Amino acid sequence: MNTIRIEPLTAAAFRPYGDVIEKGLAQEITINRGKCVRHHALALADVTGEGARVAINIFAGQPYDLPHKLDLVERHPLGSQAFYPLGGHEWLAIVCEDDDGVPVSPRAFLASPDQGINLNRDQWHGVLTPLHAPCDFLVVDRAGPGDNLEEHLFDTPWTVQK
Amino acid sequence: MNTIRIEPLTAAAFRPYGDVIEKGLAQEITINRGKCVRHHALALADVTGEGARVAINIFAGQPYDLPHKLDLVERHPLGSQAFYPLGGHEWLAIVCEDDDGVPVSPRAFLASPDQGINLNRDQWHGVLTPLHAPCDFLVVDRAGPGDNLEEHLFDTPWTVQK
Repeated sequence: MNTIRIEPLTAAAFRPYGDVIEKGLAQEITINRGKCVRHHALALADVTGEGARVAINIFAGQPYDLPHKLDLVERHPLGSQAFYPLGGHEWLAIVCEDDDGVPVSPRAFLASPDQGINLNRDQWHGVLTPLHAPCDFLVVDRAGPGDNLEEHLFDTPWTVQK
Repeated sequence: MNTIRIEPLTAAAFRPYGDVIEKGLAQEITINRGKCVRHHALALADVTGEGARVAINIFAGQPYDLPHKLDLVERHPLGSQAFYPLGGHEWLAIVCEDDDGVPVSPRAFLASPDQGINLNRDQWHGVLTPLHAPCDFLVVDRAGPGDNLEEHLFDTPWTVQK
């Protein structure tokens, strides 16, 4: 019975894993003669290692169906990784706790089209999982030399469902 | 006759001022078992000064009409600033060259809903200028202490038009 029930994405629930990027969750500063509200520093990039830079990328993702079979998670020891959807569709943010190098206690959060996340550095997570339709994401993560990817394959896949 | 004619936004035309963030302009890496294409490092954040961090923000902008009266530009000496539209509308990227501390030769670029920019550090630019409708932008720039804003008011405003 390796089942993960999908939960709504909230800043409070997601706090152990990273930040939610969404209006209303940070300091709001009115700028540009009143024409713009800056939702300030909803997340901070965190990169380390020689030659590390913060890169802005676009990930063009193909959609997944529910129930979703989760057999692989990964983590990036040298940098945080932020995802923000550009396509107007829901998507899944899947994360695990770490138990001495092994990902455990997976959780799946349903993100709205207006919600992004910034995964903490070295946070176990599933790969990008748009639902329903292809979706591009703006991604802010680490560029530079060094081995920044660790993968873990579950012996028994998890079933992610509503 | 202080008129600025709006030009299309292309990576080549914008190169002196920063990078265009758009699919197809950088290395493309297929990841996640073929389910995702990473358009890698379309831009790099560039922040400096003690306590500098790269922040991810949302700017909620009110729209401007054309012709647009441009009387103010600004620059951020301590950090680059990236804008990516979330709302599906066109917007204007306005920049100037620097002549010994004075902004000159303004240009206005019409960006599509699928185009972002990353302004170089210390690059003169107009404030965020969505067209047609309110639009949110994902913004990647500098957070931290220090004076990171310089403004310049033109004696005679410029008229920005198609």
